[in-house]
Amino acid sequence: MHSLTEKALAGSPRALARLITQVENDTPLARQALTDLHSHTGKAQIVGITGAPGSGKSTMVNELAKEFRRRDKTVAIVAVDPSSPFSGGAVLGDRIRMQDLVSDKGIFVRSMASRGNLGGLAIATANVSSVLDAVGYDVILIETVGAGQSEVDIASTAHTTLVIEAPGMGDDVQSIKAGILEIGDILVVNKADRPESRRTIKALQAMLELGHSTKTLHHGQVIETAAVVDYNEWMVPVLPVTSLTGDGISELVSHIETHFSWLKESGNFELHQRLQFEKQIRQLLQAAVWERLNGSRFEELLQQVSERQLSPHAAIEALLKLL
Amino acid sequence: MHSLTEKALAGSPRALARLITQVENDTPLARQALTDLHSHTGKAQIVGITGAPGSGKSTMVNELAKEFRRRDKTVAIVAVDPSSPFSGGAVLGDRIRMQDLVSDKGIFVRSMASRGNLGGLAIATANVSSVLDAVGYDVILIETVGAGQSEVDIASTAHTTLVIEAPGMGDDVQSIKAGILEIGDILVVNKADRPESRRTIKALQAMLELGHSTKTLHHGQVIETAAVVDYNEWMVPVLPVTSLTGDGISELVSHIETHFSWLKESGNFELHQRLQFEKQIRQLLQAAVWERLNGSRFEELLQQVSERQLSPHAAIEALLKLL
Repeated sequence: MHSLTEKALAGSPRALARLITQVENDTPLARQALTDLHSHTGKAQIVGITGAPGSGKSTMVNELAKEFRRRDKTVAIVAVDPSSPFSGGAVLGDRIRMQDLVSDKGIFVRSMASRGNLGGLAIATANVSSVLDAVGYDVILIETVGAGQSEVDIASTAHTTLVIEAPGMGDDVQSIKAGILEIGDILVVNKADRPESRRTIKALQAMLELGHSTKTLHHGQVIETAAVVDYNEWMVPVLPVTSLTGDGISELVSHIETHFSWLKESGNFELHQRLQFEKQIRQLLQAAVWERLNGSRFEELLQQVSERQLSPHAAIEALLKLL
Repeated sequence: MHSLTEKALAGSPRALARLITQVENDTPLARQALTDLHSHTGKAQIVGITGAPGSGKSTMVNELAKEFRRRDKTVAIVAVDPSSPFSGGAVLGDRIRMQDLVSDKGIFVRSMASRGNLGGLAIATANVSSVLDAVGYDVILIETVGAGQSEVDIASTAHTTLVIEAPGMGDDVQSIKAGILEIGDILVVNKADRPESRRTIKALQAMLELGHSTKTLHHGQVIETAAVVDYNEWMVPVLPVTSLTGDGISELVSHIETHFSWLKESGNFELHQRLQFEKQIRQLLQAAVWERLNGSRFEELLQQVSERQLSPHAAIEALLKLL
């Protein structure tokens, strides 16, 4: 085991930060570390937090972290920004408000960026979560900034996904359009002290009732596999929270913990984990097969296909013989 | 060669429709037909037409088809609706207006739907385009209904992509957000008889000037490969059109034809084709490798990874030995 991996396992935040940078860059050291750390994983609860800009995600994530700490759980916060080219420490503006958290040894904060490769970001986020799980954090909060397909991909890593809405952010149809509502295990209406929040809560409850029958299908698509997790038994709650005052945070954390218990008891935790590994192995295998073939007759075959001397299917036959 | 493929090649619209259904369902007959037809492909211009609902895409596609017919070109229209579960003939409501087109032997109309598999839809659309190319249609118009990632994927099949905007459809920022503007080779402002259209045209021109330097990168991402097509030489025009009266349609068709000439002369047609084949071979190879492994020790290895007896990377090593 590399000394960096050893030190991270022993609890050094500095070694952990450096190891995560290696993982983000997909270095040989990182691949070896992920292999070495694999047997240490499988204990943490990974919680994804997603929602439109302006919904107050960052403040809520901070409050969630504090509440988990009060319950004697260690917490890692990963803020993922697909639109930013900068990765590293707690560089996001919102993190400046976290002075009270940063001094706590039981909390680790990290931001991640896309560097122009959204597909890679979802894989990197999953790998970073594995490292944080292995070194012993009880709860991993993955906060995604921005919206869209990247968030859906990143959310598929999480065991429990929170979708944050805030009242008065335009029409509620936006969330459904982006396909974000379907991925929520818990829906949270933030800024619940505002009078308009009742309307947002009612709208979300109505949508949940409408969408209930199609939920499993959506989850099946998110996970991208033929197997479909049975989420029907989990009734998605809509919870009012006011992050600024802390109202509702304790109830939200209790629901997050209940969802984890439900995942474990229903067998869905095992299933989720299996699907994640299957997806990961498929991706790694694809990359490995490609690495093997790129040095070979591939270019020549591609040229023949382009010139219509060979069909794509015939090219595949030839390539499979090379493996 | 299967008799269905032979009849489609000989010009039977009925055989063609049945063959396309086979291609949509990815049957063994379809795979064989695509192999047999491969040497007949490479002549058609594939034009993608995309834009928000309400921009008047369908009417414009009909007018484009008529103008290409006036120029003695045969036309196939493929209307792709990622949100609909129904495929088949000209079933879309908009097609009811096409009575004058349907009686023309030089026009073939087809709708396609997702059946819940968006990734598969892009592949199916590419394969259907190949069949239409092989049987001799000069121009293939692919109209995508709806918006989002699926349109970007489908557009990557096209040689020339039109992005349709209409004045007064809310803020212009919408299009950029959806990443759709970046894929346009020609931007069209439909309903140009409305007074607000001047503002839309100016807004699009301003965006093009701003975004010019990043265009190549976006195209690189759309095509999903390391190689980047040099699109910098093509200056994206913004064209006003009024589909209902036909104003501007002739100029638009001339620009589409000019873009095709530019693609051929600049070498970008060859490059685009090569990238498409490379992508297709990657996808087919991935599926073939997966088919080979699924009957083998895969499940056993996945179980060992889930139980932390084996790391994902060690599982890949074992799987590669099996190939």
